[in-house]
Amino acid sequence: MTFEQWMRSVLDRVEGALEQYLPADSIEPARLHEAMRYAVLGGGKRVRPLLCHAAGELTGAKAECLDAASAALEMIHVYSLVHDDMPCMDDDELRRGKPTVHVKYDEATALLVGDALQSQAFVALTSDVLAPAQQAALVRELALASGSIGMAGGQAIDLASVGHTLTRPQLETMHRLKTGALLRAAVRMGALAGEAHDAAMLKSLDAYSAAVGLAFQVVDDILDVTTDSATLGKTAGKDAKDGKPTYVSIIGLDASRALAAQLRSDAHQALAPFGARAQRLAELADLVVNRVS
Amino acid sequence: MTFEQWMRSVLDRVEGALEQYLPADSIEPARLHEAMRYAVLGGGKRVRPLLCHAAGELTGAKAECLDAASAALEMIHVYSLVHDDMPCMDDDELRRGKPTVHVKYDEATALLVGDALQSQAFVALTSDVLAPAQQAALVRELALASGSIGMAGGQAIDLASVGHTLTRPQLETMHRLKTGALLRAAVRMGALAGEAHDAAMLKSLDAYSAAVGLAFQVVDDILDVTTDSATLGKTAGKDAKDGKPTYVSIIGLDASRALAAQLRSDAHQALAPFGARAQRLAELADLVVNRVS
Repeated sequence: MTFEQWMRSVLDRVEGALEQYLPADSIEPARLHEAMRYAVLGGGKRVRPLLCHAAGELTGAKAECLDAASAALEMIHVYSLVHDDMPCMDDDELRRGKPTVHVKYDEATALLVGDALQSQAFVALTSDVLAPAQQAALVRELALASGSIGMAGGQAIDLASVGHTLTRPQLETMHRLKTGALLRAAVRMGALAGEAHDAAMLKSLDAYSAAVGLAFQVVDDILDVTTDSATLGKTAGKDAKDGKPTYVSIIGLDASRALAAQLRSDAHQALAPFGARAQRLAELADLVVNRVS
Repeated sequence: MTFEQWMRSVLDRVEGALEQYLPADSIEPARLHEAMRYAVLGGGKRVRPLLCHAAGELTGAKAECLDAASAALEMIHVYSLVHDDMPCMDDDELRRGKPTVHVKYDEATALLVGDALQSQAFVALTSDVLAPAQQAALVRELALASGSIGMAGGQAIDLASVGHTLTRPQLETMHRLKTGALLRAAVRMGALAGEAHDAAMLKSLDAYSAAVGLAFQVVDDILDVTTDSATLGKTAGKDAKDGKPTYVSIIGLDASRALAAQLRSDAHQALAPFGARAQRLAELADLVVNRVS
């Protein structure tokens, strides 16, 4: 199977899993369920589900277990986008090429969509396709990665940084929490959904995730200044306009490109112990660095 | 032990558990952690933790297991208050006698405090004082009760009802989701934290919770029109001002009082199979109906 074929097959599975684990919009409260589905379905690069499925191949995880974990990861990611786009946060009107939830519906609905997607992620993770001990382990990974010492904490640091000059280590700490923690959880949850994991494997995978997570952010910052809104599916040039520190603003465009290439190499290096079994993870590192939107 | 002594001892345990399961405000991001603690600690009636501990007595649950469940329940409850108080929802400035989080801090912080408290609830539930299978069972109860077919869904129905005339069944559906689901989860989680539970017991407990949950809301509606803001610790008369349907507006004050008394009796009836072991649950039903704030 080529990488493109593998990706297409995983993405199909993930859309099916999201469809399955989201409440139908025929169930009351129907408008809330419709808005949750609007936010989640039919868009997005599904980077976290792809990482989760790729990591699961290392440990022999069953596809339906990875589907549940992937659905949970994507629901958490989308809830964070919905809340981050709200007027009291980044105040953005375009996401994945569509009006943001508070624009399409209203602010109160956007708030509840995010809240309910977070709960629904934990509903998905306690589906009985996973053994109870796996459910518990995956819930803990996801909850820690989402909360105040993970994604939500990174967003708090991001907000506090607007209009301030950050050092490069401060910028890295912010991104390690804001996007890195959930990407790391995606990889770990994929591995933990199978049986054949141990502490050394998880340590190597964490090193991989750290490199990929940072590369993801560096490339985001590059694309924010080099690409138009239509291609990105979100508002381009927003960080510079908002006075947010970025890799490009701190180290410049050329050094940012060199850093992304170095991080890709670091990611490959971290996968060395796994040989060919880590092929999909290696290809995903390439995808993250080479993407154009 | 008198009921007052029992309650004091549970409330002390719960404050300790919340202190333990909330991140310290010395940990970065410190301002977010400070705001989370501001929202949660030193206030509130702790009704859900009390119900959880009382139900745990029926099944021999260990106190430290009930502490973890109670901390999780209260974090979910407080996250919902923080988000409900925001300008795009109920726009309230006073809660538990203190400025609401978005007034004391800012809207973005209030949004993140709620988001992070929800995650932290699931961190608390996956503490290793609980066996993995219990963690998984309690996570599922709490996630379902919090999400779109529970608390968040009830809030969506509540928002949609402003300025509309609801029938009494519609009002009951709204409250069953908005406050009833989490109260029911509190009782079920207390029982599930011990060993000696079965389907019949959970069914009786659900009947108890349904009566107590509705009584709680009817009494809330009565207090909203009969008590001042200082006593309530939140803005009195708000529902009438906001054009929200309440039991008092639909069936009147006297019928609301009679309904509360009937629901207390229903709650006691549901506990009949348990005899004296359910004493604390019976006393809590009385407390919910007799409270003055």
